[in-house]
Amino acid sequence: MKHAVVLLSGGIDSTTTLAIAMAQGYATYALSFRYGQRHEREIAAATKIAIALGVHEHRVAEIDLRIVGSSALTDTIDVPKNRAQSEIAAGVPITYVPARNTIFLSYALAWAEVLDASDIFIGVNALDYSGYPDCRPEFITAFENLAKLATKSGVEGQRFRIHAPLISLSKPEIIRRGAELGIDFSLTHSCYDPTADGRACGRCDSCQIRLKGFHEAGLRDPIAYA
Amino acid sequence: MKHAVVLLSGGIDSTTTLAIAMAQGYATYALSFRYGQRHEREIAAATKIAIALGVHEHRVAEIDLRIVGSSALTDTIDVPKNRAQSEIAAGVPITYVPARNTIFLSYALAWAEVLDASDIFIGVNALDYSGYPDCRPEFITAFENLAKLATKSGVEGQRFRIHAPLISLSKPEIIRRGAELGIDFSLTHSCYDPTADGRACGRCDSCQIRLKGFHEAGLRDPIAYA
Repeated sequence: MKHAVVLLSGGIDSTTTLAIAMAQGYATYALSFRYGQRHEREIAAATKIAIALGVHEHRVAEIDLRIVGSSALTDTIDVPKNRAQSEIAAGVPITYVPARNTIFLSYALAWAEVLDASDIFIGVNALDYSGYPDCRPEFITAFENLAKLATKSGVEGQRFRIHAPLISLSKPEIIRRGAELGIDFSLTHSCYDPTADGRACGRCDSCQIRLKGFHEAGLRDPIAYA
Repeated sequence: MKHAVVLLSGGIDSTTTLAIAMAQGYATYALSFRYGQRHEREIAAATKIAIALGVHEHRVAEIDLRIVGSSALTDTIDVPKNRAQSEIAAGVPITYVPARNTIFLSYALAWAEVLDASDIFIGVNALDYSGYPDCRPEFITAFENLAKLATKSGVEGQRFRIHAPLISLSKPEIIRRGAELGIDFSLTHSCYDPTADGRACGRCDSCQIRLKGFHEAGLRDPIAYA
């Protein structure tokens, strides 16, 4: 059985990516990150999803992105609310974490090398997150190139493949694909600023993108909103 | 004043690299990593060096490489001792940490982006560590290419430069260069397996490379050995 490391944040995109990897016959090794105080709800979602989908193993790496703190996702600055779709779509969002996907893929690469796996799955999406430079196809290609040169197995001839199966899908397309694969979206978490009892705010960029996606997919979002 | 992030492990190579960056007129931001139980001595050395050389800022990132534990540097497997020079030089060493420099450079890139710095210094060396794939010039070039595509500032036109000033130097050449720049090598730490009171073992690969380097440089190694 082929092995693959899958980055799993507990949101819709990474969960759908995990389901796609499993549907392609990979034994999956899910990797999540705890990197600041705002992420406990995400880790909890990722853990439930990993169990529900039946991954081979799920690991959570504790990493310290606060050392480069410049983003609403790791810092104490406010998450923007109720922004217009045009504002969400334009430019690099305030929630951008510098080099985040580079750091995440580096860990995935390290684990893949240990597992002797040559496949890594990441749920990046170039359409809905056009403002994130590290969600574009050319970034993925550059990382594949780096992976070959960065590792013992790469040097020995292994060709790492970074799969980004959602990269050119729209949010409603991702949600429909996930639904076809039987994902229970009530397990997923997207909100940047949930309430103390774990409900989504419904107003941050991530909630707005999610709600719009479900609406356009013609499906009901099963999670609770504040 | 130009700003640069410098990876600082507290060993001879990274300390010499820091001194080179400072001699080139950079305001330096030193970055160290705590990634397993064996590294407290290294962090202590890096901290002393950062103060002695007068860096602008020194940060220590707590990262979790144990999740991919497969190496003598993060695991509990034994550090090899008294290996012949031919054995040390041949192939990828047992102390190889998968994708380590990729992970380290990813953090450095994140911090550089926050600082609006386009220069990163890393003390990799292709000669003495020929077995580490991520110490070769082609790896450095691939990371530069990735950096441009991975970041907001790269997309906006910033050209990141990864400086690896030691990459083609031999160990005695590095030691001589460091001595010329006035480094107090008694502050540096190289041993993979120091004694409880902090003395170097003198027998692991890293100690052997260090001792041979000082010998060939015609200089005395000022640190204490067990």
